[in-house]
Amino acid sequence: MEKVKIAILGFGNVGTGVWKILLENKKEIMKRSNYDIEVAKILVKDINKKRDIVVPSEMLTDNIDDIINDESIKIVVELIGGRSEAKEYMIRAMKAKKHIVTANKLVIANWSKELFKIAKEENVLFYYEASVAGGIPIIREINESLTANRIQQITGIINGTTNYILSKMTIDGSSFDDALKEAQEKGYAEADPTSDVDGYDAVYKLAIMASLSFGTEVDHACIYREGIRNISDIDIEYAKQFGYTIKLLAIAKEENNKLELRVHPTLIPSNHPMANVNDAFNAILIKGNAVGELMLYGKGAGDLPTGSAVVGDIISILRNNVSPSDVKTTNDKADFKEVKKSEDNESEFYIRLDFKDKAGVLGDTAKIFGKNNVSVVSITQDVTHQDHATLAFITHKSSEKNIKNSLDKIIELESVNKVEIIIRIESFN
Amino acid sequence: MEKVKIAILGFGNVGTGVWKILLENKKEIMKRSNYDIEVAKILVKDINKKRDIVVPSEMLTDNIDDIINDESIKIVVELIGGRSEAKEYMIRAMKAKKHIVTANKLVIANWSKELFKIAKEENVLFYYEASVAGGIPIIREINESLTANRIQQITGIINGTTNYILSKMTIDGSSFDDALKEAQEKGYAEADPTSDVDGYDAVYKLAIMASLSFGTEVDHACIYREGIRNISDIDIEYAKQFGYTIKLLAIAKEENNKLELRVHPTLIPSNHPMANVNDAFNAILIKGNAVGELMLYGKGAGDLPTGSAVVGDIISILRNNVSPSDVKTTNDKADFKEVKKSEDNESEFYIRLDFKDKAGVLGDTAKIFGKNNVSVVSITQDVTHQDHATLAFITHKSSEKNIKNSLDKIIELESVNKVEIIIRIESFN
Repeated sequence: MEKVKIAILGFGNVGTGVWKILLENKKEIMKRSNYDIEVAKILVKDINKKRDIVVPSEMLTDNIDDIINDESIKIVVELIGGRSEAKEYMIRAMKAKKHIVTANKLVIANWSKELFKIAKEENVLFYYEASVAGGIPIIREINESLTANRIQQITGIINGTTNYILSKMTIDGSSFDDALKEAQEKGYAEADPTSDVDGYDAVYKLAIMASLSFGTEVDHACIYREGIRNISDIDIEYAKQFGYTIKLLAIAKEENNKLELRVHPTLIPSNHPMANVNDAFNAILIKGNAVGELMLYGKGAGDLPTGSAVVGDIISILRNNVSPSDVKTTNDKADFKEVKKSEDNESEFYIRLDFKDKAGVLGDTAKIFGKNNVSVVSITQDVTHQDHATLAFITHKSSEKNIKNSLDKIIELESVNKVEIIIRIESFN
Repeated sequence: MEKVKIAILGFGNVGTGVWKILLENKKEIMKRSNYDIEVAKILVKDINKKRDIVVPSEMLTDNIDDIINDESIKIVVELIGGRSEAKEYMIRAMKAKKHIVTANKLVIANWSKELFKIAKEENVLFYYEASVAGGIPIIREINESLTANRIQQITGIINGTTNYILSKMTIDGSSFDDALKEAQEKGYAEADPTSDVDGYDAVYKLAIMASLSFGTEVDHACIYREGIRNISDIDIEYAKQFGYTIKLLAIAKEENNKLELRVHPTLIPSNHPMANVNDAFNAILIKGNAVGELMLYGKGAGDLPTGSAVVGDIISILRNNVSPSDVKTTNDKADFKEVKKSEDNESEFYIRLDFKDKAGVLGDTAKIFGKNNVSVVSITQDVTHQDHATLAFITHKSSEKNIKNSLDKIIELESVNKVEIIIRIESFN
């Protein structure tokens, strides 16, 4: 069987996962790719660092030139993460006629157009399945399985850290702070959890999925973003009473050639399959005009799940399933699609108030909602919690603008202390 | 843009779905396939039949020769269903150098080896995504996305009719008979529901998935099969009490090069995502040694969902993503893998008895289970139902043989009237 040499850039969590899979599943991978894959070089920062996985020392290098200049290396697997170096190395590798596999969502979300253009010019393949949702093959799903569809909506639980935290809060009744601490102890959250907890990670992934699904460039800066720091155990409890579960959703819709793009905590019906997506699992629901609803559920991170996507991409390159022209189809011929202003977005809403006077608050808010065309579906029993009396509403579908206008008035009411939180609802209708 | 001519064999539910998608999504399909697809001929039984969808009359033919002999037709889409004619037409089309797309599970489950061999000889492509689970792209998932994995288990809700019936029984408390009647009225079940209700349909689909997943030929006659006719509302209720939901599962496992293949009603934990797969939806959970658990959820039948898979296959052929050699990889180089005898299979069990005397039954059964190495996890409260007293047990993992030996003794007990039902449990551990 013919040998093929590859190089791995970065030997952290995912890099070692790839190494393990290539070793453990060697027989299957040879059969499926028709090649004997040999890792020729691994780029690391410190070649003398003690590692759990022992690799032949001549395989390690701290000099990218050893890889770029080695003509026998046909595929470069970029698992460094981050921005500038990773991008530079991939470009240099392509110019040296090497195919690329990457797990780097930051680079794809920021520079896919530039990178795909170079791949086309150099006639090399560029795969990035692992950049979104780890082991879930969502990129291939959009690019190859659902080609008969006009995709109408993508809804994802695509950040494992926040899903772990929200699951802990929902199932065990933990507070946000305790759940975050536990996530950090288990290695699901970084010491600085901003990227996950405040929704940035989900925004990058949504940008990649939306770009492919709707055949347009998507600037991640245009995506509405809200994290989960403000979600309290009271909201989790109220949501339950209303029949909902709170998840951080990434939502992309296309309607009339306009895009709606947002990442925020969301109430979803507790009997929907996505409500049972717990812990560090991810799920992505795609609505296509032919297939209807299609959901993928799996591990969105971790050495082996992410490694599964990376090695799958290596095998795809070896099979040469996708010709270079396909990789760029959705981007080269991208239509321009406008992103809706977030105030024009519509959804149902959950609104929780801290109030002084119940009779007053019910009458006063009813008037204000009515004037702003917001109709209320249900109201919770009030709960006294730490000396505050709190109350939650569920509204029918309303525009963000009407909700905002209502709340601007409600906050001024004598009977109301504070608008504690507003959370959007997704009913999947 | 270059034109390509295709022919559709059969213009029923799926055939008209394909027609609608090719029309409705023409722009997207041209962009993604780089071809302008023209339906040149449609094979029907009666060209004069009144149809909801009007097609130019010169497009219809009742003579397969009009299609086989037309050299301008490059792809034949077989949607007749059934066995002999469909198989014959596909073989003739391949010999006339036409690529094949089919939705025919019967033909694939019975003659894939023969058909793939001919495809290879004739150097044509043969796609069958729609043969399993309608709109869910499970074939591509196994063949192309999970190539880095050794697949360890596939667990599917792959029959919409039985899932509709069980959902009705679970959510609305319907009886089996009423739920079946409703399924028939809604067009989810045939007048003769045997193929669905008794598990044959799921068996064929499981055979196809297992063959691809484990790289071996699978004779569908070797698959253990049990339908849902014996499931009563009492079992649904007991299952709920124990924290389970009843689903018809198709299960394929590989362990130590031996296969375990079975289709039967199953108790699954109510908090598992598969428990929320309701109505006519399908779901397939794949366990791979790298990716971990991956689940796909979507519509397993219907004109547009199944059409989505068929048109996706047509586009794949036009892109020529998969070379003919790939299509046959898993079958040509198939390892032989033995199918375990079902008595050697292990699982937890739910067992319901109709008894005369409670104190007696508890003591007597405990002794018998103990002797046969079956340990009981929990026992329901007894319920008197229509003059019978009934009681259910949940066991730890046991072999089918030990359960059978226990029940052979239990049925002889003075204190027991009848063993009402035995249902396997799948805990996804």
